[in-house]
Amino acid sequence: MTDQRAVREALRTQHIETPSWAYGNSGTRFKVFAQEGVPRDAYEKIDDAAVVHRYTGVAPTVALHIPWDRVTDYGDLARHARERGIGIGAINPNVFQEDEYRLGSVCNPDPAVRRKALDHLLECVDIMDVTGSADLSLWFADGTNYPGQDSIADRQERLSEALRAVYDRLGDGQRMLVEYKLFEPAFYTMDVPDWGTSYAHCVDLGPRAKVLVDTGHHAPGTNIEFIVAFLLARSRLGGFHFNSRFYADDDLMVGAADPYQLFRIMVEIVLGGGLEPAAGVAFMLDQCHNIEPKIPALIRSVLNVQEATAKALLVDAAALRGFQREGDVLSANAVLTDAFATDVRPLLAELREDMGLDPDPIAAYRRSGHFERIRAERADGAAAGWGA
Amino acid sequence: MTDQRAVREALRTQHIETPSWAYGNSGTRFKVFAQEGVPRDAYEKIDDAAVVHRYTGVAPTVALHIPWDRVTDYGDLARHARERGIGIGAINPNVFQEDEYRLGSVCNPDPAVRRKALDHLLECVDIMDVTGSADLSLWFADGTNYPGQDSIADRQERLSEALRAVYDRLGDGQRMLVEYKLFEPAFYTMDVPDWGTSYAHCVDLGPRAKVLVDTGHHAPGTNIEFIVAFLLARSRLGGFHFNSRFYADDDLMVGAADPYQLFRIMVEIVLGGGLEPAAGVAFMLDQCHNIEPKIPALIRSVLNVQEATAKALLVDAAALRGFQREGDVLSANAVLTDAFATDVRPLLAELREDMGLDPDPIAAYRRSGHFERIRAERADGAAAGWGA
Amino acid sequence: MTDQRAVREALRTQHIETPSWAYGNSGTRFKVFAQEGVPRDAYEKIDDAAVVHRYTGVAPTVALHIPWDRVTDYGDLARHARERGIGIGAINPNVFQEDEYRLGSVCNPDPAVRRKALDHLLECVDIMDVTGSADLSLWFADGTNYPGQDSIADRQERLSEALRAVYDRLGDGQRMLVEYKLFEPAFYTMDVPDWGTSYAHCVDLGPRAKVLVDTGHHAPGTNIEFIVAFLLARSRLGGFHFNSRFYADDDLMVGAADPYQLFRIMVEIVLGGGLEPAAGVAFMLDQCHNIEPKIPALIRSVLNVQEATAKALLVDAAALRGFQREGDVLSANAVLTDAFATDVRPLLAELREDMGLDPDPIAAYRRSGHFERIRAERADGAAAGWGA
Amino acid sequence: MTDQRAVREALRTQHIETPSWAYGNSGTRFKVFAQEGVPRDAYEKIDDAAVVHRYTGVAPTVALHIPWDRVTDYGDLARHARERGIGIGAINPNVFQEDEYRLGSVCNPDPAVRRKALDHLLECVDIMDVTGSADLSLWFADGTNYPGQDSIADRQERLSEALRAVYDRLGDGQRMLVEYKLFEPAFYTMDVPDWGTSYAHCVDLGPRAKVLVDTGHHAPGTNIEFIVAFLLARSRLGGFHFNSRFYADDDLMVGAADPYQLFRIMVEIVLGGGLEPAAGVAFMLDQCHNIEPKIPALIRSVLNVQEATAKALLVDAAALRGFQREGDVLSANAVLTDAFATDVRPLLAELREDMGLDPDPIAAYRRSGHFERIRAERADGAAAGWGA
Repeated sequence: MTDQRAVREALRTQHIETPSWAYGNSGTRFKVFAQEGVPRDAYEKIDDAAVVHRYTGVAPTVALHIPWDRVTDYGDLARHARERGIGIGAINPNVFQEDEYRLGSVCNPDPAVRRKALDHLLECVDIMDVTGSADLSLWFADGTNYPGQDSIADRQERLSEALRAVYDRLGDGQRMLVEYKLFEPAFYTMDVPDWGTSYAHCVDLGPRAKVLVDTGHHAPGTNIEFIVAFLLARSRLGGFHFNSRFYADDDLMVGAADPYQLFRIMVEIVLGGGLEPAAGVAFMLDQCHNIEPKIPALIRSVLNVQEATAKALLVDAAALRGFQREGDVLSANAVLTDAFATDVRPLLAELREDMGLDPDPIAAYRRSGHFERIRAERADGAAAGWGA
Repeated sequence: MTDQRAVREALRTQHIETPSWAYGNSGTRFKVFAQEGVPRDAYEKIDDAAVVHRYTGVAPTVALHIPWDRVTDYGDLARHARERGIGIGAINPNVFQEDEYRLGSVCNPDPAVRRKALDHLLECVDIMDVTGSADLSLWFADGTNYPGQDSIADRQERLSEALRAVYDRLGDGQRMLVEYKLFEPAFYTMDVPDWGTSYAHCVDLGPRAKVLVDTGHHAPGTNIEFIVAFLLARSRLGGFHFNSRFYADDDLMVGAADPYQLFRIMVEIVLGGGLEPAAGVAFMLDQCHNIEPKIPALIRSVLNVQEATAKALLVDAAALRGFQREGDVLSANAVLTDAFATDVRPLLAELREDMGLDPDPIAAYRRSGHFERIRAERADGAAAGWGA
Repeated sequence: MTDQRAVREALRTQHIETPSWAYGNSGTRFKVFAQEGVPRDAYEKIDDAAVVHRYTGVAPTVALHIPWDRVTDYGDLARHARERGIGIGAINPNVFQEDEYRLGSVCNPDPAVRRKALDHLLECVDIMDVTGSADLSLWFADGTNYPGQDSIADRQERLSEALRAVYDRLGDGQRMLVEYKLFEPAFYTMDVPDWGTSYAHCVDLGPRAKVLVDTGHHAPGTNIEFIVAFLLARSRLGGFHFNSRFYADDDLMVGAADPYQLFRIMVEIVLGGGLEPAAGVAFMLDQCHNIEPKIPALIRSVLNVQEATAKALLVDAAALRGFQREGDVLSANAVLTDAFATDVRPLLAELREDMGLDPDPIAAYRRSGHFERIRAERADGAAAGWGA
Repeated sequence: MTDQRAVREALRTQHIETPSWAYGNSGTRFKVFAQEGVPRDAYEKIDDAAVVHRYTGVAPTVALHIPWDRVTDYGDLARHARERGIGIGAINPNVFQEDEYRLGSVCNPDPAVRRKALDHLLECVDIMDVTGSADLSLWFADGTNYPGQDSIADRQERLSEALRAVYDRLGDGQRMLVEYKLFEPAFYTMDVPDWGTSYAHCVDLGPRAKVLVDTGHHAPGTNIEFIVAFLLARSRLGGFHFNSRFYADDDLMVGAADPYQLFRIMVEIVLGGGLEPAAGVAFMLDQCHNIEPKIPALIRSVLNVQEATAKALLVDAAALRGFQREGDVLSANAVLTDAFATDVRPLLAELREDMGLDPDPIAAYRRSGHFERIRAERADGAAAGWGA
């Protein structure tokens, strides 16, 4: 039996962060399809993030991407967010979109390029100081396309140096999240291709360096929940970049490809204490809405995480442990499948009403006229899209 | 024993087509790195293709991509090519880079979009008529990103209709090559995801519809040489888009990731008679040189195909068949590995000297000053890159 | 809106076939773990299959594997089945477990081995005649482990010959199902590696040759529901070997790895008319219960297919088509996810009660004492396991 | 320029270990094909290993698998080996082939089973003491097949306990190698699925715990040479289980699937100092010769590693570093491809003659009559195959 009050309390206080860049245009290398009403600057992205929070109630922060969200006064941006009821989440430096980074950023063979990249990382810690952000979210596009192009070992040393310099700069209450990715944009090696590489560097650095799991960044067949359980038990799980994929880093809406996998991940989180604030696990989205409208897609994504969490909370942990101890494979498995088969939408609709929200956030958003408003307001000016 | 004279003759008359788009800038969704000296229009791409042919002697045609290579007078473009010693190869329509194609081109649920796409395909047959191109090379970015987004079956019917209309428009001596691709840019379904889909449509259409094998478009673990042997035996192998990949459609230089696989593909070609002109197999490159200079990368790629072909031609077919009949697994395998282990660079250097070429095409290109010339000449004006 | 009466009627008449071999021991190459109470011969396997049907009501046939299920009098075996309320389903020849088949069966370079294999296939058609089985289910372990080991093209010709001989022997109302598999037990080439190969041979043969889709036999990333929709639209979908997998051909309980994928497959079946008897789609399980008890695992598997079917039947097809036509990606997707999120267990429990069954088949089986009975009765004698 | 004398010296002193189990029968779950002349006990396996060393000159040790190679007097077995000119290599405990291990060995939920498994591991250290083996090679088949079957985190704790107990028992000069594997025989989780898990446990344990890389145990797309370079730089690369694969853990002859990958791995070894004895990298084969004769397959495998090593030694490291520093992608890559394209068979034939060996080990073995001898001698008695 699960404690229904505890389930509701956990769901009510859940915190899912949306990324500023998912509000803008994005695409594949073949085409970025422009959409109407997309934000033209960081302020408008924050406005849209506030809308997602207004209808879901569990998305109170927004992650920034620098320089995509560069503004002259970050304090003012943070205030703008606060006024709309949300906070600034993780700061995501971008060290892959300038021509100097053709052969990498902090791992580049050229020390001048490495210096430039490091300076940008340090600048992002400054922005954390100003905005109150607690997490520096590091993803490096660094790698090589051809065997022999560069020394794998040397690049690791350069990476270590940069990470150390940034780690030493972190202030109180600030953390560094080190993301890994199997491939893309580099096609032969990535300099942080898997959780093992990220973990090894975090252990080198110290307790405030944590691994960031992007659910789309693994080799086919990788059991992500194993990684989650492993890192959580060792206090090295910094958080998630949620999205879903069928093939590679497709960046589709989280839960859209394999909702049972998302549930299993959340089961490990719940069983391992990862929903407790003390665990320090950040639940963030990182998605690209290439063909679907962005705001409802983000609302849907937040709901998908919420539904997976609700189902995970319904797992009868005591029964599960009992069957596991007895080696009753089918019954233990059935504890999970029973929770997953449960329709949690009524429970969540009730919860939302308790929270003063519309029970159906997508419908409420559609009725709100927000899209019609931004389509009109933002018709002029350049969209602040991917890379803009 | 292989017949050395026949080997040389086969190599001397080999024909590897380079793609106009590989001479321009390209990149990933994260960044297109600009390079110096890239062509500013289709004429300059042809100039560069002629350079690759000049140093390799086996790259006498260039494939065009429409509208990337749109010109006002295609007859003039063909003449420009002819004057530089090369011909126009396959015409590649592009029905994925306009905003209307967000939900597909010939498979789009909207009949007006389908009509627009079909018109472009038919326009490309017109261009074939003018330029003397024999092959219409069809790749569709069509597909869906989310389950339920569209009807798989309906999209197949729309595809059939479009293919039929184009097939019926083909003139004498013109063929249609139908390419398949597992994923990207669509992430849930592609409308032609695998060779089976392509084959089924080709069989529906008639003998002039053939399957085009892009070596980077398969699921992990796919045995490409099986597909090649299968299609060749059924006269349905239209040709290749050569490139190499470690993960997905990386579009690296052919042979750079797995030269033994390239060799095995060429072994099936040689054993199945696919080098004979009558077989009608088109050997084309389709690559993206994101971080390396384009012209030497294309020269290297042509050489890689040439070396794989040379090794395949050295396979002792009689011995192989003998061991296969006897079920001598190790000896049969050793016939292949012996040919692959042979260093064919001296043979190819000699062949080039026979053909009046420099034995080392890369070195000769570097000495030629071509790059310095185009860097200066093309410093002004916009590069005609990916999608330009 | 879906028609609830039609939904129930479809579920009531659903027909899921269990495989005789799943009742016996199985394992990996590392170990076959023996279980208590497993059948000692084909008669006892049928007894167990009848138990699965007794509790589920939708598993009225059992597939046989020859020679694993060899008996002296197949008429007697069929009668035994009939007396227990079930019928004989597909006949599965086994041409991979004799030493002669080291280099293949119908594709073997040695004509004597090919003859032996063909004779066994023809013997299986004789068994169909006697048992009333309508489907010959063909899976070939044939392939090669090393490049060059045998000729891909020659093996295809040998395969064609054998298939033709068997096809011509089929009687009225008999069909041939041609299964494909990416790899295992052969590791370089399989002679029928993918649906395209199977489809091409079926088209060569005639309308009674159909493709059999084993859900565990694909490359990573393959979209199975695309294949299902494609084949169904062309009347070439013969049926399924259901199971689930995380990595390769894991042969786990169907629905255990990715229940949403199973649902999507059933959606294509429902939308394409594949539940109609006229469609001739056979829904068969093909699983290995290596560590879990076999009978409850098979009951659970039948229920999993049933639940996926129920959810697929709840898809609001009219709404779906509407959103697809409008290009409303999110709403079309939501039609599917809404059906999937529905808890169909109450509906199915009711249905079972209508059918005179216990609403909870697993619990009813456990209470029945069947396992305790067979454990005692079958304690002596050799288990008829995998390969026995 | 590479130093030819150093190249020869490195090749002359190379040490490639063969595994006792590869001399016996093996197969897939579908069938173990029996071969003639296979050994009937550990003594005969050692005899065959000595034959492989006699013809190659670089395979001076053989790994044992306990209990497959159980004898009453291990001192006597070691003496037998010594008399034939070879030594005992790594000891490989087997904790997966008894019925108690159905739900795992050291990670089993049942403490009695864990105790049994641990006792076997400790027994293997005793065998190391007696035979002079320096390496305990640990691979665990432990894992789960179904979500929820057991607690991922609890299993990690049990694993840690067992590893600690064994580590503390190791004597002077003894090491523990911890192997990882993505899947098989468990299909949902493996308890050591990847190098990261292995690495984390090794770091926990101490400097004598090292990661063992089996080249067939990775997810598709994994860059193995990255892992090799990473571990080597951190002194955590214990050694290899070499084999090759196209799909999963195919256990084909090393170098048979992707010789360029094997070369790249050896390049990282050479560049990272991994050929130096001080690096402590063990080069071991771990293969299954299911359809090909075992002894020539092992000779061929040893030669394949040797050829890859020779090519890696020919890499012009100074030129490579120069091009890497300059960011000259194509030239750096060409340093590798030039070395790979070199035909090293003449060099190795010469080396063998210097070493008093036949230049063609396979031909010499075939001429020796060894196979005819063992076929006759071992015709009676049960083959000591996989699991025997």
